[in-house]
Amino acid sequence: MSKPIEGRGHGAFEHGEELCQAKPFVHRIRVHWGDCDPAKIAYTANIPAWALKAIESWWEHYAGVDWYQINLDRKVGTPFVHMNLDFRSPVTPRHMLDCEVTLKRLGHRSITHAVRAYQDGVLCFEGEFVAVFVDPETMKPRTPPDGILETIRARCSESS
Amino acid sequence: MSKPIEGRGHGAFEHGEELCQAKPFVHRIRVHWGDCDPAKIAYTANIPAWALKAIESWWEHYAGVDWYQINLDRKVGTPFVHMNLDFRSPVTPRHMLDCEVTLKRLGHRSITHAVRAYQDGVLCFEGEFVAVFVDPETMKPRTPPDGILETIRARCSESS
Amino acid sequence: MSKPIEGRGHGAFEHGEELCQAKPFVHRIRVHWGDCDPAKIAYTANIPAWALKAIESWWEHYAGVDWYQINLDRKVGTPFVHMNLDFRSPVTPRHMLDCEVTLKRLGHRSITHAVRAYQDGVLCFEGEFVAVFVDPETMKPRTPPDGILETIRARCSESS
Amino acid sequence: MSKPIEGRGHGAFEHGEELCQAKPFVHRIRVHWGDCDPAKIAYTANIPAWALKAIESWWEHYAGVDWYQINLDRKVGTPFVHMNLDFRSPVTPRHMLDCEVTLKRLGHRSITHAVRAYQDGVLCFEGEFVAVFVDPETMKPRTPPDGILETIRARCSESS
Repeated sequence: MSKPIEGRGHGAFEHGEELCQAKPFVHRIRVHWGDCDPAKIAYTANIPAWALKAIESWWEHYAGVDWYQINLDRKVGTPFVHMNLDFRSPVTPRHMLDCEVTLKRLGHRSITHAVRAYQDGVLCFEGEFVAVFVDPETMKPRTPPDGILETIRARCSESS
Repeated sequence: MSKPIEGRGHGAFEHGEELCQAKPFVHRIRVHWGDCDPAKIAYTANIPAWALKAIESWWEHYAGVDWYQINLDRKVGTPFVHMNLDFRSPVTPRHMLDCEVTLKRLGHRSITHAVRAYQDGVLCFEGEFVAVFVDPETMKPRTPPDGILETIRARCSESS
Repeated sequence: MSKPIEGRGHGAFEHGEELCQAKPFVHRIRVHWGDCDPAKIAYTANIPAWALKAIESWWEHYAGVDWYQINLDRKVGTPFVHMNLDFRSPVTPRHMLDCEVTLKRLGHRSITHAVRAYQDGVLCFEGEFVAVFVDPETMKPRTPPDGILETIRARCSESS
Repeated sequence: MSKPIEGRGHGAFEHGEELCQAKPFVHRIRVHWGDCDPAKIAYTANIPAWALKAIESWWEHYAGVDWYQINLDRKVGTPFVHMNLDFRSPVTPRHMLDCEVTLKRLGHRSITHAVRAYQDGVLCFEGEFVAVFVDPETMKPRTPPDGILETIRARCSESS
């Protein structure tokens, strides 16, 4: 059964957050032929998918766990509650797509990332992505297990 | 070569628009096993993809042309410049996913749709999607060919 | 950890099988703009994905359970061990894609489906797909729970 | 309109082919959370998609053109006419997925690749993929432009 996620909606994750001034983490994507539509540019729906892959790589790098590990091994789900995206310039296979991921806010209830993606120095898209921490079985809010937020904060300080 | 899309960015499509008070158009989607991730809910990146399919079905119904036809036969591209989405409740294969599409704004430069999607009466996600009209070869702004906006306006009036 | 699937490989599911002469089940797919690549035809990798969706719909119709239900509620996994596909004619959004699914072999260890897909009467692709029955936790072979094979056989007889 | 591809079907590309004994080319793929289904393994339909990406990377490496370039710049389409796949062991995000691509046959009408993919030394899947050379507008058979087959043959000799 589909369970509503408690704490979803804007305003639920406003308190106790802090800004982490890290240098952007860059996740490089090879755009393929099959990612493009007959307009010869990447089909729009691939773009949020790439942004999520970039954010998952950020997790692996900064928290030491990817989403598979944090969900299955650490019993923390991180479902998204919001995303917004502005598409600035078409994406094609002519260049690599460099997705810069920045941590914007980190709290005990939610985490916000910004993604800005470039091809050959041109900004192609940018967006913001908000996820919350939940128990993966009940989908109720939970705080991340000890150590994960500390690891992220420590690595962000190192890289800023 | 990746060409920047002129007129992209908020503010470019503010003037000359009008609200079309149509009843929502419903595009029904069957959620599949492979759409779900190990959390047993639809993977987030599928959601914007479904919203786009619902909007494309809206085009077919209200404008009489799908994106394949409007691009290849009528030489009008409709790239998205913005999307935002709030995820309210998880999507699963337990129920059909009914995507309600509403036209929010229609002008000579851009078109804005809202999508609200339900499973078993529960709001699962909602979002807004802004596309602009371009020449598909040059990616420069163009107005839609005669008849398309009129067709949309006429059908929206009928259904409101 | 990735566990090898026992009983995988050709020859493991040769015995005790029987042919079920059912009429083809038809699963209709709407091909979208974003399914096509710059050659203006459906990108190849979408084709096995559509065939699997058609087979999943067959399951829902003939066995009364989709893959989500058979896995999560009935504790039977049905991983594929083999697929082969011949691509006969390009798929486009110009017509609906009608995927005919036929049960070819059904045993206590494996199940084989054929899929033949048409647009406007033209054969676009055809293929064969072999899946095995496993315990979803251990990935070891298991027989399907009571009733599922009987339900399939009964419905196949009705429709032949 | 969907045009049938001439020369499709087995037997059309039997003559004038030759074996190119190259060392496998390895295309490494990072498996993501969203690639997995509720069985906690990669969803089957992602596997042919990955194999195609590996083959496209092979093209870029051995022919000096990816599918975007060969189609749009060189006016050669390379649609697949056949694929077969055996799934040997589940794919998960626990390890990188190394896709070995080998050229099996190369002629003036078709090209055949084998893909064998490993995670942590375990064979996960293997398959064969046959594509033909066509004019991308008419979908009629054509020979590849001068230089492409020669480039492939030269690079295969170097690497064998």
